[in-house]
Amino acid sequence: MADWQVVSGGITAPKGFKAAGIAAGLKSSGAKDLALILSDTDAIAAGVFTLSQVRAACVDYCRQRLRAKASARAILCNAGQANAGTGEAGWSDAIACAKMLGKELHISPDAILLASTGVIGQRIKLDALGNGIPQLVAAASFEGGKDAAQAIITTDLVTKEIALETTIEGRPVRIGGMAKGSGMIHPNMATMLGFITCDAAISTSLWQQMLKRAVDLSFNQITVDGDTSTNDSVIALANGQSRTAVITEKSQNAHKLEAMLTAVCQYLAKAIARDGEGATCLIEVQVSGAPDNKAASEVAKIIAGSSLVKSAIFGRDPNWGRIAAAAGRAGVKFHQDELNIKLGDILLMENGQPEEFDRHAASNYLKQAAAGEYLTGDTVLISVGVGVGAGQSTAWGCDLTYKYVEINAEYTT
Amino acid sequence: MADWQVVSGGITAPKGFKAAGIAAGLKSSGAKDLALILSDTDAIAAGVFTLSQVRAACVDYCRQRLRAKASARAILCNAGQANAGTGEAGWSDAIACAKMLGKELHISPDAILLASTGVIGQRIKLDALGNGIPQLVAAASFEGGKDAAQAIITTDLVTKEIALETTIEGRPVRIGGMAKGSGMIHPNMATMLGFITCDAAISTSLWQQMLKRAVDLSFNQITVDGDTSTNDSVIALANGQSRTAVITEKSQNAHKLEAMLTAVCQYLAKAIARDGEGATCLIEVQVSGAPDNKAASEVAKIIAGSSLVKSAIFGRDPNWGRIAAAAGRAGVKFHQDELNIKLGDILLMENGQPEEFDRHAASNYLKQAAAGEYLTGDTVLISVGVGVGAGQSTAWGCDLTYKYVEINAEYTT
Repeated sequence: MADWQVVSGGITAPKGFKAAGIAAGLKSSGAKDLALILSDTDAIAAGVFTLSQVRAACVDYCRQRLRAKASARAILCNAGQANAGTGEAGWSDAIACAKMLGKELHISPDAILLASTGVIGQRIKLDALGNGIPQLVAAASFEGGKDAAQAIITTDLVTKEIALETTIEGRPVRIGGMAKGSGMIHPNMATMLGFITCDAAISTSLWQQMLKRAVDLSFNQITVDGDTSTNDSVIALANGQSRTAVITEKSQNAHKLEAMLTAVCQYLAKAIARDGEGATCLIEVQVSGAPDNKAASEVAKIIAGSSLVKSAIFGRDPNWGRIAAAAGRAGVKFHQDELNIKLGDILLMENGQPEEFDRHAASNYLKQAAAGEYLTGDTVLISVGVGVGAGQSTAWGCDLTYKYVEINAEYTT
Repeated sequence: MADWQVVSGGITAPKGFKAAGIAAGLKSSGAKDLALILSDTDAIAAGVFTLSQVRAACVDYCRQRLRAKASARAILCNAGQANAGTGEAGWSDAIACAKMLGKELHISPDAILLASTGVIGQRIKLDALGNGIPQLVAAASFEGGKDAAQAIITTDLVTKEIALETTIEGRPVRIGGMAKGSGMIHPNMATMLGFITCDAAISTSLWQQMLKRAVDLSFNQITVDGDTSTNDSVIALANGQSRTAVITEKSQNAHKLEAMLTAVCQYLAKAIARDGEGATCLIEVQVSGAPDNKAASEVAKIIAGSSLVKSAIFGRDPNWGRIAAAAGRAGVKFHQDELNIKLGDILLMENGQPEEFDRHAASNYLKQAAAGEYLTGDTVLISVGVGVGAGQSTAWGCDLTYKYVEINAEYTT
């Protein structure tokens, strides 16, 4: 049993966090496009960013800021222009954004982190953003999580937010999160962003380590295309407003907090995979028996990202051959006579040999997933055993549909 | 200028090679499904095989044979059943195939190499194959290349064969090749096979090295999905019937022969990429300026394999952002301000900054490719520079279309 409960409020559920989301005219659609997360007090800040060699200015900006000082008061996120592939001008724009917000909030620009999403190669519409900032700051409230979650999305069909609460030292401690991203990468609309707020008190280095591990078990497991985009960022703030003692390494409370952080990240990661362009269901791939967790992760991601597996799922075809072939090419050594594959509860392959199975039931299992409940009943579970090792991992993806091709062929730069 | 000319005859163009292709009843369609390549004399044999952990019996069989003795008289290839994921029974079947053919040819089964393609998990229809062998052997002729090329295909829309001729010591030397494979992987119809014949006299180790290098520059550059399937094999025979002196390391003749071998493999590889499921054009990605050729190859393959780049090409959209994003995530370090991208002759990005370009001309370039001449005019060329290094590489792929999803969603195991 999980040691927490779901609460409302998203990123504003934890104590001391305000948020806002407004339409500043950055998106041509007129939808909300500027988001603010604001902590009442200095918060410990941690970030995990794209490994791409082609990066947005905001990514380099945050890396530089966090290297200098691992704390922040606010995060500003714009949607519409990615500010990637924009060179020196893009860098100046990023600095200007922080300055404008700092001035309005009466805080140092150094206490502000930045994120952008939108079309690569386009600079931020600085005038519109500047004009919007007073309204944005005025709108910031302890109920603003939902508005902010709306302001950060681009091609997403749904907003993605969650908040969980646990008890530490008899006091409620909360973690909130919101994300944007549309499963299959869509680099021209600049991919995946995640924002986490937490009111626990925690040491800087432990918070960074926890975030790294949680991201590895969540956002980094929705690879789909081996994708990392120009703007991918996960930023997490912890402001200590729950008034618990500062959590340090390896305590039971640390364990509790990290488990809850991981759950928040996994919920958001699954929501992104489920919202994959054109997707009709979520695919969860559980791999066990690998030499170590890293090897299991490789196999899980290759299966979840295989175009052939994904299109077979869309075709409601229990095609174990494609799953086996994907597992085989993951670059992880195993004995093919130890390969086991299950679809839901249905055994398709055991010890490297195909099983006789009820094709009708298997196809029905796949059909039902497309009609199931969001992030639970709409999940196709593929379980793969590759041996007797202790390594295990879970990855998420979605099916590959006509709609995906339509979206990506007909989107024009 | 290439130092060779195209000649007819495919794998039977080189001296001393017979071939045949017949319908033995392995495919339910009644199409040709059993192929034989037969050298008049013992030939030096080299092979390159799938690295997958899930392998067909024929792959393990050939590896074992070639380890024992790097020569062969014949290759038997069946289409219809992959004989992968078939365990001990599949292994016995492979041995039985070699025995039956050896008996009919009055040669040792050890002199026979095997390849299979078809549905994973299905054992070879041994009775049908056995009944077909006398007819197959009787049909073997010096004009049989085309029949063999037809008998090895599965979902391929076209057969793939080529033969080139050069002159060594005043004598004609030929290399012939045939392949099957349908661009995007289709593991249930068991992927890519290549067969090469050559009448040069060459040392065993040199032939193996040449084949490895040629495959690295050709078949291994049509990654598309990071794919290696259960049955992927390239087998090359050299029988010395051109009566030239035995070619040894590092001579000018060795260089000439390797260049021609590479050209044969690249022709076949491009033909496979072009025949990608649902494809409307070939995509060629040339990467230069990388630290080394391996790094350049990684970048080229990631771009050629990107679902987003592929669907943009299908949409005739000159989407440089997707190309830049794919290059950035290839795991190769470069400075983004040294990134250059060209589409055909049109410069899209220079020194990491987007160029103003004629969108109409760029889109037209993409449109014309779909109507161009096979393997030349139907090619979309993407040139990417990632710095000032000496590393360069070329990879091939095809566009991602509605038809691809249709083929792979509606194919039933």
